Amino acid sequence: MSGNSFGTLYCVSSFGESHGPAYGGVVDGCPPGLELSQADIQKELDRRKPGSSRHVTQRRESDTVEILSGVFEGRTTGTAIGFLVRNEDQRSKDYAAIAQKFRPGHADYTYFQKYGVRDLRGGGRASARETLVRVAAGAIAKKYLREKFGVVVRGYLAQVGTQKIEFRDWTEVDKNPFFVPDAGIVPQLEKFMDALRESGDSCGARVNVVASGVPVGWGEPVYGRLDADIAAAMMGINAVKGVEIGAGFAAVTQKGSEHGDEMSPQGFLSNNNGGVLGGISTGQDVTVSIALKPTSSIRLPRRTIDTRGQATTIQTTGRHDPCVGIRAAPIAEAMLACVLMDHALRHRAQCGDVTPPLALG
Amino acid sequence: MSGNSFGTLYCVSSFGESHGPAYGGVVDGCPPGLELSQADIQKELDRRKPGSSRHVTQRRESDTVEILSGVFEGRTTGTAIGFLVRNEDQRSKDYAAIAQKFRPGHADYTYFQKYGVRDLRGGGRASARETLVRVAAGAIAKKYLREKFGVVVRGYLAQVGTQKIEFRDWTEVDKNPFFVPDAGIVPQLEKFMDALRESGDSCGARVNVVASGVPVGWGEPVYGRLDADIAAAMMGINAVKGVEIGAGFAAVTQKGSEHGDEMSPQGFLSNNNGGVLGGISTGQDVTVSIALKPTSSIRLPRRTIDTRGQATTIQTTGRHDPCVGIRAAPIAEAMLACVLMDHALRHRAQCGDVTPPLALG
Amino acid sequence: MSGNSFGTLYCVSSFGESHGPAYGGVVDGCPPGLELSQADIQKELDRRKPGSSRHVTQRRESDTVEILSGVFEGRTTGTAIGFLVRNEDQRSKDYAAIAQKFRPGHADYTYFQKYGVRDLRGGGRASARETLVRVAAGAIAKKYLREKFGVVVRGYLAQVGTQKIEFRDWTEVDKNPFFVPDAGIVPQLEKFMDALRESGDSCGARVNVVASGVPVGWGEPVYGRLDADIAAAMMGINAVKGVEIGAGFAAVTQKGSEHGDEMSPQGFLSNNNGGVLGGISTGQDVTVSIALKPTSSIRLPRRTIDTRGQATTIQTTGRHDPCVGIRAAPIAEAMLACVLMDHALRHRAQCGDVTPPLALG
Amino acid sequence: MSGNSFGTLYCVSSFGESHGPAYGGVVDGCPPGLELSQADIQKELDRRKPGSSRHVTQRRESDTVEILSGVFEGRTTGTAIGFLVRNEDQRSKDYAAIAQKFRPGHADYTYFQKYGVRDLRGGGRASARETLVRVAAGAIAKKYLREKFGVVVRGYLAQVGTQKIEFRDWTEVDKNPFFVPDAGIVPQLEKFMDALRESGDSCGARVNVVASGVPVGWGEPVYGRLDADIAAAMMGINAVKGVEIGAGFAAVTQKGSEHGDEMSPQGFLSNNNGGVLGGISTGQDVTVSIALKPTSSIRLPRRTIDTRGQATTIQTTGRHDPCVGIRAAPIAEAMLACVLMDHALRHRAQCGDVTPPLALG
Repeated sequence: MSGNSFGTLYCVSSFGESHGPAYGGVVDGCPPGLELSQADIQKELDRRKPGSSRHVTQRRESDTVEILSGVFEGRTTGTAIGFLVRNEDQRSKDYAAIAQKFRPGHADYTYFQKYGVRDLRGGGRASARETLVRVAAGAIAKKYLREKFGVVVRGYLAQVGTQKIEFRDWTEVDKNPFFVPDAGIVPQLEKFMDALRESGDSCGARVNVVASGVPVGWGEPVYGRLDADIAAAMMGINAVKGVEIGAGFAAVTQKGSEHGDEMSPQGFLSNNNGGVLGGISTGQDVTVSIALKPTSSIRLPRRTIDTRGQATTIQTTGRHDPCVGIRAAPIAEAMLACVLMDHALRHRAQCGDVTPPLALG
Repeated sequence: MSGNSFGTLYCVSSFGESHGPAYGGVVDGCPPGLELSQADIQKELDRRKPGSSRHVTQRRESDTVEILSGVFEGRTTGTAIGFLVRNEDQRSKDYAAIAQKFRPGHADYTYFQKYGVRDLRGGGRASARETLVRVAAGAIAKKYLREKFGVVVRGYLAQVGTQKIEFRDWTEVDKNPFFVPDAGIVPQLEKFMDALRESGDSCGARVNVVASGVPVGWGEPVYGRLDADIAAAMMGINAVKGVEIGAGFAAVTQKGSEHGDEMSPQGFLSNNNGGVLGGISTGQDVTVSIALKPTSSIRLPRRTIDTRGQATTIQTTGRHDPCVGIRAAPIAEAMLACVLMDHALRHRAQCGDVTPPLALG
Repeated sequence: MSGNSFGTLYCVSSFGESHGPAYGGVVDGCPPGLELSQADIQKELDRRKPGSSRHVTQRRESDTVEILSGVFEGRTTGTAIGFLVRNEDQRSKDYAAIAQKFRPGHADYTYFQKYGVRDLRGGGRASARETLVRVAAGAIAKKYLREKFGVVVRGYLAQVGTQKIEFRDWTEVDKNPFFVPDAGIVPQLEKFMDALRESGDSCGARVNVVASGVPVGWGEPVYGRLDADIAAAMMGINAVKGVEIGAGFAAVTQKGSEHGDEMSPQGFLSNNNGGVLGGISTGQDVTVSIALKPTSSIRLPRRTIDTRGQATTIQTTGRHDPCVGIRAAPIAEAMLACVLMDHALRHRAQCGDVTPPLALG
Repeated sequence: MSGNSFGTLYCVSSFGESHGPAYGGVVDGCPPGLELSQADIQKELDRRKPGSSRHVTQRRESDTVEILSGVFEGRTTGTAIGFLVRNEDQRSKDYAAIAQKFRPGHADYTYFQKYGVRDLRGGGRASARETLVRVAAGAIAKKYLREKFGVVVRGYLAQVGTQKIEFRDWTEVDKNPFFVPDAGIVPQLEKFMDALRESGDSCGARVNVVASGVPVGWGEPVYGRLDADIAAAMMGINAVKGVEIGAGFAAVTQKGSEHGDEMSPQGFLSNNNGGVLGGISTGQDVTVSIALKPTSSIRLPRRTIDTRGQATTIQTTGRHDPCVGIRAAPIAEAMLACVLMDHALRHRAQCGDVTPPLALG
C-alpha cells in the first residue's frame, strides 16, 4: 500500500491538495448497517474547520462534505464510502512571493528533492488541510465505535507554548475556540495567543486524546501492536514530533514498583500503561499525548535558500494558524478512532469466537 | 498482513516463544548481491545477548543464528532469507510459582483475555527475547544501508532511571555493558544498577538512535511518512511508551522562529526536525529518542489477581533484566534500520528516475 | 487492504455505484514527472463507454473524468491522483419491477446475504460500470509503461459465443464496434449480435490481451508472481470465469518437448509460456486470454426467488449489454497495465541495481 | 508485502530452496484454540511427498515437519506458527552437467536475469519442492475450516496428457498414486505414464478442486473477490497456466439462459458460476479447475543457451516428475484452503454482525 492510504481492514485512502480543486477520500471496510448521514461527518469537519476564531487561519472554507457512495437509504452498505470536499478559497497568489523559496520547517524542500517537482501552491499535498480527510474517516469510525462498543474518543489541548492547561471537564472542550477542558483558562489563552500573533511568531502545543470503553483484547503481538499503530497514526499528523502512551517519557524515571499497574478483582488500580500492555488493550482508557511543533509559516524573517540553491531570506504573510495544535484535537481523535476501528475488526476476525475468560470490575 | 510481520518491501516475519524450541524469521525483499554471512548477523545478536554482564538477565543463551535460505555462495539471492535461533536455556519451572497469577505491567493478562489461552511459559510471545528476530533482520538492513548508501545507524543509552548520560563519543558505546557514549559515567551507573538490583526493583530508561548519511527524499506523504513508520517501529519494541523525532516534546514550548530549521547553501543550520520534514528525510541525521518503562518482573510484592480473578500478591524471582533499556540500543537500531531500508526501496521504486534538483553542502 | 483497493506500489482504490451520484478512484504511487492530462484518461474511457453502438447497452453516459489532484502544470507530482466521473443517466425506476427479485447469475443475491442490505439500484457496487475506474487507472499505467519502457498493452475480442475471430491486424481493433482485429468478420458479427439481441438472450466471449515490450525480470517468486497477479486482476473483472497465460489449458495435452520454449542467442523460439517463467517475465510478449460469461440480465423468463425467499420468475428489461465481452478489451488491457506497472516499480525497488547479465536478440 | 508471503489475515510466509538446508514458513493469523499437532500437518505433507510411486520423482525425503511456535499444549495460541522441514536428499551434483545452461520452460533463465545471480542448485527457490510450505499452511487452514464451518476441500487429477478421468468417487482419490477419483482407470494411467517415462518426455495435466460447505457471503467486491484471490493462488502454483471457476471457458459459448444459475426456495438449480457470484460465495460448492504444463526437465535434447548466451543443447537427467500434475491435488487443495480461510476471517471482521437474511435449502 502506498503512502496515501492506511489501515488493514478499515482502510482510508486520501487525495487532494491545498490549492487544487478538492480533497476527498475512500473509506473501505466499514461494516454494513451503520446509520450514516452527511451530517455525521459534517459535524466533525466543522470542529476542525478554519476561520472559526481569530486564533486560527482566516481561510474561508465551508468544508462541505458530499458522500458519493457506500451509503444507501441512510445506512452503510459495506462497500467503499467515497466522499469529496471542494476547496473554495484557494488564493494561490498569496504564494507568489515565496514561490521560489523554501520555508524553514516546511516540507516544500523535501517534496522538491524527492519528486523533482516544485508545487508552489501553498503546501500542496503537505498542507495540514489534508487532515480533513482523516477527520471525515474518523467521524465514521467514531460513530461505529460508539454505537457498537460504547467507545468514546475525545481529545483536548493540554498545552500551548508555555501555557499548561489542567484537565477539568470534557463538556467544556467544544465550548471554546481552544478545545481546552477548562473554561477558566480561556481568557489567559486568548491573551497569550493575541500576543503571539502580534509578534509574528508561532508556538508548539500538546494535545491529549483518550479513548474510553475500549474492550480488553484489541491489538496484535509484536509488530501489529495497538500502541505501535497509534504511534504511527499520531506521528503521521502534520507537525507532530512526539507521541506518548500512558506514562510516556515519565516512565524513564519511574521504578517498576511504581509503574507496573497493580490489579484487583475490580480491575487495574492505576493506568501508567495507558490502556495497552504487550500491544493489546487492557480495557482501561487508552491515553495518548502528542507534541506539535510550532507552525513553520511565520511573519518573522528567516534565512533560507531558493530553488536554485542561493541564500535568501523569507517571511510568510499568508493566512496561517499561529499554533496548529489548537485545531489538532479533532484530528488526533480521528486518527485514534481509525486505528481502534481497524483493530476492532482485526480482533473480531481472529478472535471472534473467544470470550475473555475473566470479567473484572 | 497480520501482527507478526512488518514492512512494505523489506518485510520481516517473526515467530517463536521465550520457552519454546526456537525463534526465527523470514526477511523478504532484500536486494540480491549483498555479501552476507552468519557472522554479519551474529555480531549484532551478540550485542543484544543476555548474560553479558551482571546488569542484565542471567539467562544463558548463545543465540547462534542459522541462515536457512536466501544466501548462495556468500551473497543474497534476492529471495526470502530464513533464519533460526534455537533456545537453549528455557527454565519453564521458574514460572511454576506464578503460573496462575498475572504480573502487573506484563502482557500475560491481555494475552489471556484476547486469546483465551494461558501460556504460562515466561512471557511466551510477549517476551523481549523476540527482539532477537528484529536484531537479525536489522543486521541485514544495516549492512545494505551502509554498503549501498553509506548510512550508519547507531544508538546509545541516554538515561537510566534518574541517571542522565551526556553524549560524548560513539566509539565508547560498544566498550561498556551499558551502551553509553561516555566511559567516565560507567562506575556511577554500575553503582546505581547494583543498588537497584539489590532493592529488588527495576527502572526505566531513555535510548537515543541516530541514522547518519540518510539521503534526502526517503519517506512518503501523509500516512506513509518516514517518521510515522519510525514511530510505529519504536513503539512496537517491548516496553517502549514514548517516541520523539528531533526536538520531540521540547517542540511544545519552542517558538516557530526557534524550531524551524533555517537553511543555507551549505544545508540546514540546525536539526530540530530530526531529519524529517513532511514525512520525508531532509538529508540530515535522523534522530530518534524513546522511553522504555521499567521491567515488570520485580522481586517486590505487588497486588494482582489470579487466573480465576481472585485477589493475590506476586513476586517474580526468575532471571530478569532490572532495566530492559540497557540492552535496547541494538534493538532500536535494528528497527530504525529496517524502516529506513523499507523506505530506501520504496523511494527507488517510485522515484528511481528523479535526481534531487539541489545539491547542498 | 480491503476489497476495493489493489496493488502493492501502484495502488488503485475505487468507489461508486451504478445508480449513485458518481464513480471515482485514487491512484497512489505513480512516479512523478509523467505528462498527464484529462484527455489521456478520457481517450481510454471513451473506448469503454456505453452507447457507442447498438450492440452494447444504450445507457447514455458521457463518462467525463475530472482529475482532482496529483497533477500540477500537466505533470504528475508523485502524490495521490484523485479522479471523479459523475453518473448522468441513472434510471433507477427501470429496476422497480425487479427490486424484490434476484437475477440468476447476478451478484444481488450474494451481496444481500453478505451485507444484509438490499441495494435495488441496478447492480450497485457489482455493476460492470465500476470498470471505468479500472480503465482510468489503467490509462495512467499504460502511458507510463509506454513512455518509460516502450511497453504496449493491447487487447481484442477473440470469440463471441460460437463466433471465433482470427487475429489479423492490431490496427483494426479500434475501428469497429467489436474490438476485433479482422475487419472482414464484422458483418457476420453484426448479424450474430442482432439475432442474439432479438432473441432476448445473451452470450459469452473470449478476450485476448497482449503486452509487448515487457523487459525480462518483472515479477516475484512464489506468491508474488507476475502471472498470479495477472490472474487475480483478470478474474476480478466482472463476468470473467477463466484465465489463461500463454498456452493455457492447451498445456494439458502438450508434451514437455513441445511446450518448453527452446532458446537461442536471439531469444526464445516459441512462447507457450506466455512471457512468464517462474512468475517472472521472460522479455517476450505477455499473452493472456480470458473467458467472460454471458450477461445475467436477459429478457427471457427465468426461475428465481424474491427477497422473502419465495419462488417467482424474472425478466430483465432494462438497458443491458447482450455480450459484456464486447466492451471488455479496454478493461482487460487496463488491468494488465496496472499489474505490469506495479511490478515495474516493485522490480526497480529490489533490483534497481541489477543489469540483466544476458542481452539476447 | 513482498513475493514470498500471501494473505491479508491468514498470512503465509515461505522460505527455503531445493538444495539448501531446509524449507520453512510462518503462518500468522490463525485463530486461537484450534487443536493442532505435528501429525495434522504431516498427514498432508505425506500426500504430496516425493518418491511415493514410480510415477513421481525418486528424490528421497521424509518431509518431516517440526512445529516451532504458536502451539501450546496441543492448541494454537493465536500467535505466529513457525515450522521447518529439513532437506535430506540434496544431490546438487546432479546439476553439475547443466549448471551453465538454461532449461527450456524452466525459471532459471528469468531468475538469472532478474537477480543477476546464478543459483545452480536444481531450481533454487523456483523448485516445486517449495510447495510443501503451502501444503503445511493449507493443512492448518483445512482443519480450521472443517472444524469451524464444516467446509471440506478436496481435489483430484482430472486429466493427464490426453487421458481424461471422469469423476466417480471421492473416496478413491487417496487410494491410488494418481489422485484419481476412479479406481478403474488406474491401470490405463500406469501404462500411459510408463510409456511417457520411457520416452524421456513429460506431459501436462488438469486438476480439479472443490470446496464444499462454504457458507454464503465470503469474498469482497471489486478487487478483493473470492474468485480473484483463488485465481492468484492457483496461478501461483508452479507450472499452472490456466484457471477456471465454475463453467470456466465453457461460458464463452453458453447463452445467458443456459449459464445463469436459476434459483428456487431450496437453493440454486445449477452451478455454472462455481459457487461465486460477484466475487462472493453463493453457498454452493466452490469449483476450480487448473491446467498444469508438462515438466520442463526432460531427458530429450533441447536447444538452449548457456550463461554466456551461447547456443547449446541440454538434456536433464536428474530425478524429476514426468507429470507434475500428479502430485498437484494436495497443493491446489492447500491453496484453496488458505484463500478460503483468509476470506472466512475477513468476512467475520466486517460482517460478523450480519445474519444472512435468507435461509435456503
